[in-house]
Amino acid sequence: MSRPAHRRPEYHKINKDLFVLTYGALVAQLCKDYEKDEDVNKYLDKMGYGIGTRLVEDFLARSCVRRCHSYSEITDVIAQVAFKMYLGITPSVTCNNSSRTEFSLILDKNPLVEFVEELPAGRSSLCYCNLLCGIIRGALEMIHLAADVTFLQDRLKGDRVTEIGITFLRKLDEKKYRRKK
Amino acid sequence: MSRPAHRRPEYHKINKDLFVLTYGALVAQLCKDYEKDEDVNKYLDKMGYGIGTRLVEDFLARSCVRRCHSYSEITDVIAQVAFKMYLGITPSVTCNNSSRTEFSLILDKNPLVEFVEELPAGRSSLCYCNLLCGIIRGALEMIHLAADVTFLQDRLKGDRVTEIGITFLRKLDEKKYRRKK
Repeated sequence: MSRPAHRRPEYHKINKDLFVLTYGALVAQLCKDYEKDEDVNKYLDKMGYGIGTRLVEDFLARSCVRRCHSYSEITDVIAQVAFKMYLGITPSVTCNNSSRTEFSLILDKNPLVEFVEELPAGRSSLCYCNLLCGIIRGALEMIHLAADVTFLQDRLKGDRVTEIGITFLRKLDEKKYRRKK
Repeated sequence: MSRPAHRRPEYHKINKDLFVLTYGALVAQLCKDYEKDEDVNKYLDKMGYGIGTRLVEDFLARSCVRRCHSYSEITDVIAQVAFKMYLGITPSVTCNNSSRTEFSLILDKNPLVEFVEELPAGRSSLCYCNLLCGIIRGALEMIHLAADVTFLQDRLKGDRVTEIGITFLRKLDEKKYRRKK
């Protein structure tokens, strides 16, 4: 991630169709490699985790987000800044418990499935976009936040919306969560 | 590819880092799956071919390129419009033979390898970006042009630049090469 900071922002922008189709090729390859949907889901999550750990530093540097003081604020940054920056969409956020540690990102649109009409035959348990969960989990871990990130609903499975659940597992450690200068 | 034509252009733009890292995960998975570099190269090309056949119609619709009358013009469109649109770069073009059927795209920068410092150990014959060759080949075939598309030089292999060679295999059939209305 040792990249010069002076690169022009537009250099970072590409057409998303190439990404969406390449992601489809990746999922297809994993489906070929692993018979069980659970294994494909696990590998997508694992790959996403690796990607998230690499993306986060650059994201913090470029997004200029301020320090967050609550899980709620962090989830808002994921939805409003990170999703917007990387996928061009802004999911809505809901809080799912009174202790404000469980949140959902609700995606009305999901660009990653734009070329996908339905799950492949015999793949009804596939979490097609599980890479996203891994990315969020990996990025959060790099700022010392442990979280479970899973799909709770998926339009590809007939649900009305796509919903990613984020459950923060540990209290925010104020000392640890500090942006690198 | 049955997508509405009224979508706003900015909806198509995403940050490329997510794509670049996801592509890296795809290559890593193929390296895990196939022992021989040649097989990885073949599968990347095959995947790219499938992607190219799907991208081309949308590309023609959105890019508004005029009908081309020579291989030279077509190569210029690939370099100046398609590469710019999908990868944010504009390779330079050279013509490599007097009958003007062989061209090279010279990439000074290659965003796809931005997170890659060198080829993985024991993978010296890997054409890391071979997906691009497949995409070009697939897209050209959809407009009834047969071509060989291969990497001639690769900075990941120590070359000074990255060079993609395009050799058109058949004379342009004027009747066939017509944009769909």
